[in-house]
Amino acid sequence: MIRLFIPHDLSAGAELALDSGQSRYLAAVMRQAVGDELLLFNGRDGEWRATIGAVTKRGVAVRAETPVRPQAAGPDLDLIVALVKRGRLETIVEKAAELGARRVRPVVTERTNADRARVERLTAIATEAAEQTGRLDVPGIFEPVKLETLIAGWEAGRRLLFCDEAGEARPILDVLADEAAGPWSILIGPEGGFSPAERARLRALPYAVPASLGPRILRADTAAISALTLWQAALGDWRVAIAP
Amino acid sequence: MIRLFIPHDLSAGAELALDSGQSRYLAAVMRQAVGDELLLFNGRDGEWRATIGAVTKRGVAVRAETPVRPQAAGPDLDLIVALVKRGRLETIVEKAAELGARRVRPVVTERTNADRARVERLTAIATEAAEQTGRLDVPGIFEPVKLETLIAGWEAGRRLLFCDEAGEARPILDVLADEAAGPWSILIGPEGGFSPAERARLRALPYAVPASLGPRILRADTAAISALTLWQAALGDWRVAIAP
Repeated sequence: MIRLFIPHDLSAGAELALDSGQSRYLAAVMRQAVGDELLLFNGRDGEWRATIGAVTKRGVAVRAETPVRPQAAGPDLDLIVALVKRGRLETIVEKAAELGARRVRPVVTERTNADRARVERLTAIATEAAEQTGRLDVPGIFEPVKLETLIAGWEAGRRLLFCDEAGEARPILDVLADEAAGPWSILIGPEGGFSPAERARLRALPYAVPASLGPRILRADTAAISALTLWQAALGDWRVAIAP
Repeated sequence: MIRLFIPHDLSAGAELALDSGQSRYLAAVMRQAVGDELLLFNGRDGEWRATIGAVTKRGVAVRAETPVRPQAAGPDLDLIVALVKRGRLETIVEKAAELGARRVRPVVTERTNADRARVERLTAIATEAAEQTGRLDVPGIFEPVKLETLIAGWEAGRRLLFCDEAGEARPILDVLADEAAGPWSILIGPEGGFSPAERARLRALPYAVPASLGPRILRADTAAISALTLWQAALGDWRVAIAP
């Protein structure tokens, strides 16, 4: 069934006018008609079954019918990722949404070549991925900041999984086996790696845990997906068997 | 340093004429000149340091100088993946190479819409990824076959990690904790999932181990990358700390 993320409040009987993009998607692309059902979520009120009430030139109107799932939050997991080429950054955002990250924070490091990200476009990618993957919220996509700025404002109690491709870190699954759930951030460096000064700075942070992602050189998108997967499997919401 | 996969035998002093694609890449794209160094591997003779001996209109010639790493094989890990859209299949092949799969076997299932793959193009993608990731071989890319054909010819002693998104399987890290290294295949279904008949068939195979990839619906490329990562971390070559 089609799932849409909407900004409106959701309650029984609420009549909602969808925006032009979603109206076009439902009516023209998916050929939905009055009476057809869909699922709605807004990141606050859980998931609702809804029906299409009107399809007009001005757009599609839907009516929220019954709640299907209560709002639930996934783990408090940030993905901090050095700016990489646009296509790979878009892949990272799509996968971060599928893999349950709560936020994606692009950072500028010594060896990144860019200092901007198209946050609006990345948010649209995150939204579509959230709709398809079945989660009840959309990960927040932040404007890029310098790595040093992020460190300067670090939240007390948050751990940092520092994926250190330079090599002498312990295997990531061994590292995670010694850790506990809680607020975490995963840090993925740029394709050229962190500079020696950055590595020394990161390794000296009391909340940082360096970990190795195996013997091969990984592209940034692969490293991000692998680290998110291992964190979810070891400490996150992949640990629990799922009801059929 | 530039790494190239070549078909030639490698030995000290061997003079090798590169093909037109690699010649153009070295001379025109990477602006390499006589005397510049590069690394060569062929999947048999380990990795060799080489120097460029000639750059002419007919192509680039290189000379193998000294062995750098002996040939070593990664784990005997197959990725069996249902045919998905071309772009996502290409991503899967690139990532399988980075994540150390030895072979990629596309399969046709009840819910796949395609029955062909561009094996030559996929092999080129696997080769480039192998060059960049630092491995000493290139994963073999096979022509698609029906899932039933693959099962009919199953190799004795090979285990099958069946990533079963339908839900009632145990968490994948728990599953892998009970298993041992050895020849393994990972099976990733099509975006529409396996049919009920296929799922029953797969679960009845004595060598198959079903596993869950968490509470969200994953695209096929994400599922493939996640499963390869977890297998390598739990049973493969990510278990060992890497020398600096």
